[in-house]
Amino acid sequence: MNILVTNDDGIHAEGLRCLVQHLKLKKSGRVTVVAPLLESSAMGHAITMDHPLRVEKVYDQGEFFGFGVSGTPADCVKLAIREILRDKPDWVLSGINRGENSAVNIIYSGTVSAATEAAILSCSAMAISLVNGVDASFDTAAVWSLRLWDQVRDKTLPQDTFLNVNVPALVSEKIKGIKVAVQGRSRFIEQFDKRVDPRGREYYWLAGDEMSKESLDHFDDKVLKDGYVSLTPLHCDLTNHGFLGALREWVNHGG
Amino acid sequence: MNILVTNDDGIHAEGLRCLVQHLKLKKSGRVTVVAPLLESSAMGHAITMDHPLRVEKVYDQGEFFGFGVSGTPADCVKLAIREILRDKPDWVLSGINRGENSAVNIIYSGTVSAATEAAILSCSAMAISLVNGVDASFDTAAVWSLRLWDQVRDKTLPQDTFLNVNVPALVSEKIKGIKVAVQGRSRFIEQFDKRVDPRGREYYWLAGDEMSKESLDHFDDKVLKDGYVSLTPLHCDLTNHGFLGALREWVNHGG
Repeated sequence: MNILVTNDDGIHAEGLRCLVQHLKLKKSGRVTVVAPLLESSAMGHAITMDHPLRVEKVYDQGEFFGFGVSGTPADCVKLAIREILRDKPDWVLSGINRGENSAVNIIYSGTVSAATEAAILSCSAMAISLVNGVDASFDTAAVWSLRLWDQVRDKTLPQDTFLNVNVPALVSEKIKGIKVAVQGRSRFIEQFDKRVDPRGREYYWLAGDEMSKESLDHFDDKVLKDGYVSLTPLHCDLTNHGFLGALREWVNHGG
Repeated sequence: MNILVTNDDGIHAEGLRCLVQHLKLKKSGRVTVVAPLLESSAMGHAITMDHPLRVEKVYDQGEFFGFGVSGTPADCVKLAIREILRDKPDWVLSGINRGENSAVNIIYSGTVSAATEAAILSCSAMAISLVNGVDASFDTAAVWSLRLWDQVRDKTLPQDTFLNVNVPALVSEKIKGIKVAVQGRSRFIEQFDKRVDPRGREYYWLAGDEMSKESLDHFDDKVLKDGYVSLTPLHCDLTNHGFLGALREWVNHGG
């Protein structure tokens, strides 16, 4: 089995290193790492078209570790599949991200966008993220997410669909199990911090990440709060199918 | 009515200027422009967290035209709603983009991401794009999209849902009408162009935008090809709801 590992925190990030280590220990297959050279969080599904991409071999204690790319997570997946890898990967694993990717976070997440890109290119894919917290452990996240992966790795996902996994910030024994969940509806309540630079010009920092919580038991962020690993099937079809009929009425009857 | 206009091609782009002009001619309401200072195409839903944002007043022939932001389309919408505008806009219009945003393009589009951000912040929103082609005309696109908008502007869209409009590259009389469509499944077949720089180092350009076409009559890219304006309701819920049951089976029965 050919496994491509990527992320958005960058090729040197602890979460990616931990995931690779666990995959190698399990002897899950041939692992290739292609990840951003620099942190690319909150990049959404950006791709790089206006400047060229560089690929650097990255070494760890003298040993080849993987390919670092001067681009976004989506760039990494495209470049890996189209140029770097000899064979198309059987699975693309993205993570382990520091910080949960649930609810509205999914829209901004580079970790998720790497898995989206893999699905677009017809590869099976799973994004893995770890909730921030005192007891957050990448080892725990790797163990739980790869245990989950063992249950699905030989299955065929529906077209354009990939998996989004979040692991709570709990010691392993306190995690209650795995729950299939839907994307929640919690939102950031952003604030901008307005400042003045030494030359008297104003600038803004995006600040504040308080969430407006909307909780139903099957929402991914609620499932995490309840102590479960959340597993959500995502897809690349943004159509609101349930609204097509009503919209047709609006337009045909001239509003 | 308060209308926020933004885009991803930048505040100086012809498509945005044309849209603003038509809105003002129609006396549709109070129009405020908040758009990126630089082109931000293919930015997906990126937001800027690692450096501060600047806001510049932009003038046109000595008259105030709008606010230019040193960030992405999603940044512009956040900053406009949270800081720049006194009142929350009734509608956010994003465009007119040069180039269609249908099928897989939707995933990468900054134009669409501005409308997504508006929906996240509970504003009604519409993304407008114009297919490239010899007969492509921003004026035609403005007329058709604003005619469409007249039919929906007083309605209430479902939560988290916004409209994605594409106008074909045809002279106005040749456009057959408006069709409600779903996001199509056509894909790019990207190629990377590998080159060597003057210092002997390799680099890659993302190149080639041939599409693998998958055409059904109700797909947005097909509707455009057939000579209609496409209207697609999109939403921010990426969950593949139809696959939840099967996934639950996979996980509960241990694969």
